[in-house]
Amino acid sequence: MNNITICMIGFGNVGKAFARLIDRKAESLALDYDVEIKIVAIATGSHGNAIDPLGIDPNKALLAIEGPGTLNGLSTNPAPSDMREFIALSEADFVIEISPVNYETGEPAITHIRAALQNKMHAVSANKGPVVHAYHELSELAKINGKQFLFESAVMDGAPIFSVFREALPCSDIIGFEGILNSCTNILIEMMEEGSSFNEAVTYAQSIGIAETDPSGDIDGWDASIKVAALATVLMGIPMKPQDVDRKGIRDLTPSAIQQAKNEGKRWKLVCSAELINGKVSAKVAPQLVSPSSPFFSVSGTSSFVLFKSDVLPGLGILESNPGPETTAYGLLADILNILKKEPGNA
Amino acid sequence: MNNITICMIGFGNVGKAFARLIDRKAESLALDYDVEIKIVAIATGSHGNAIDPLGIDPNKALLAIEGPGTLNGLSTNPAPSDMREFIALSEADFVIEISPVNYETGEPAITHIRAALQNKMHAVSANKGPVVHAYHELSELAKINGKQFLFESAVMDGAPIFSVFREALPCSDIIGFEGILNSCTNILIEMMEEGSSFNEAVTYAQSIGIAETDPSGDIDGWDASIKVAALATVLMGIPMKPQDVDRKGIRDLTPSAIQQAKNEGKRWKLVCSAELINGKVSAKVAPQLVSPSSPFFSVSGTSSFVLFKSDVLPGLGILESNPGPETTAYGLLADILNILKKEPGNA
Repeated sequence: MNNITICMIGFGNVGKAFARLIDRKAESLALDYDVEIKIVAIATGSHGNAIDPLGIDPNKALLAIEGPGTLNGLSTNPAPSDMREFIALSEADFVIEISPVNYETGEPAITHIRAALQNKMHAVSANKGPVVHAYHELSELAKINGKQFLFESAVMDGAPIFSVFREALPCSDIIGFEGILNSCTNILIEMMEEGSSFNEAVTYAQSIGIAETDPSGDIDGWDASIKVAALATVLMGIPMKPQDVDRKGIRDLTPSAIQQAKNEGKRWKLVCSAELINGKVSAKVAPQLVSPSSPFFSVSGTSSFVLFKSDVLPGLGILESNPGPETTAYGLLADILNILKKEPGNA
Repeated sequence: MNNITICMIGFGNVGKAFARLIDRKAESLALDYDVEIKIVAIATGSHGNAIDPLGIDPNKALLAIEGPGTLNGLSTNPAPSDMREFIALSEADFVIEISPVNYETGEPAITHIRAALQNKMHAVSANKGPVVHAYHELSELAKINGKQFLFESAVMDGAPIFSVFREALPCSDIIGFEGILNSCTNILIEMMEEGSSFNEAVTYAQSIGIAETDPSGDIDGWDASIKVAALATVLMGIPMKPQDVDRKGIRDLTPSAIQQAKNEGKRWKLVCSAELINGKVSAKVAPQLVSPSSPFFSVSGTSSFVLFKSDVLPGLGILESNPGPETTAYGLLADILNILKKEPGNA
């Protein structure tokens, strides 16, 4: 049995879902993958930290952080608040980085992943920040240390976007893609189709946790742009920052324009696109009018969709419908198992 | 450099596209995969056979079979017409089985693949027949002989259907799927939407090579059923024959029903589905009325789409648009490279 230890940086909805997932999948992991996964360290933003080399019971951890509770009582070893020290002391095989995303700098997630790799631990992340701000540095660092840095859940949750090209589609060159990658604007537009004003739609989206207190990251197309940049950087091999994307949000999309589209049987969607032209990527995020004959028309609610064009497959679309913290958590588990299968002895 | 030799059983449109593809990809195969692929044997139905251990020049082979020409002149070694002998004498590393599909028995493709595996060659096929009629036998035979049997192109051409679950989505259990898997009926319905009668649509589809001389395999849902059976057999692990699918074709779909749907902004589609219920798969192929809010609505022409439901991803859709012999050929190449990466020494 391959005993794998995990250090979790972040224990919000995705972290909790991951703890439940490895508990639910324990039997299949043992029987089909000969793996036992044990969480030995958890760091949180406001619920304390814990390290226990013998393993932290996920159910006890979930219980401990209810309300204002902390993990501190579960720690058998010193659990420093400096994350570099915390990661080093965890002595885990994998660091799972799921701290909140920082669109502008990618920090402190980049520091966490760097610390993991420097300590000869694999790094798995659901965080877009490190992908757009430090993909090449971290991948190189992983290589030098004989470890891997994967981040399937950074775009479209657990849907296989990075892994399908890395693991299943060898010898293919992506020459462009188009997609709908931001749920919040998708939902805001749908509410305006149903008659809400822009402000009513935003207020509702905030009330159900789909929009942030400052919703500009979604509305102005920054979230979509960072996803486009992440896809272009990794899948097309060309470093790209969100600022490089020709970006237009949905702020100028009026309810009357949306109603008019509806009357014509069409819909507005915030469409992302990227195309390789003469070795450079030209990328764009902008509202686009789509008709029912487009695969974008039916992408509703929190679903997302991306259509890739490559030199070998003229159109390969991947749709994720009904995602949740559980699907993001699965993306983390898939990364772990995909890393393990490439370890020596698991060919 | 890993020198790989190939024996091709079948050299129709897909075979020719494969020969062109490995020629076009030769540099990338050498640089990125350290592989050189050489065709050492080609068998055809009516253009003769050739074996040359030093390699058959793909361009010469393409030229030789133009018009009534044969490959016989390219053969440096005896090339028996018995395919079991032919395969054994080719001494290739891989057999690519792309003979015409036989829905009822899967033969003679099963015999070809069995011969390949018994001769310690990997088998790669674009043929649905062996998958539904002998998947478990051939997979077991491959295992016994330390070889692999892959068939990505058997369903949805080169789109990663089998490989995405095998290579990228570990520890996931598929509990059902829905999709549009037959191009011919898709096109016939679209022609009737545009005003053609059923017979006019069939005649046109036959003239462009989309429908067979006997179009009943498509029209009565057999082609869709064999694809459903292949997906259920492989991905859900439950052997299923096309006869086990609750099957209804498009013969009873009248142009007036199709026009009425169009007037209501809807479309008829031949929808495939399968669901795991109490350890059994319940599968169905039947015309279904879909509205623009369905991801099926925009699947037009030769495109196909399947939406999988698993215990970890509630909805993962895969769309293939604009396929052709080149995409099927890529599926064969992807299988070869995915097999090679699991060979000892390529971990």
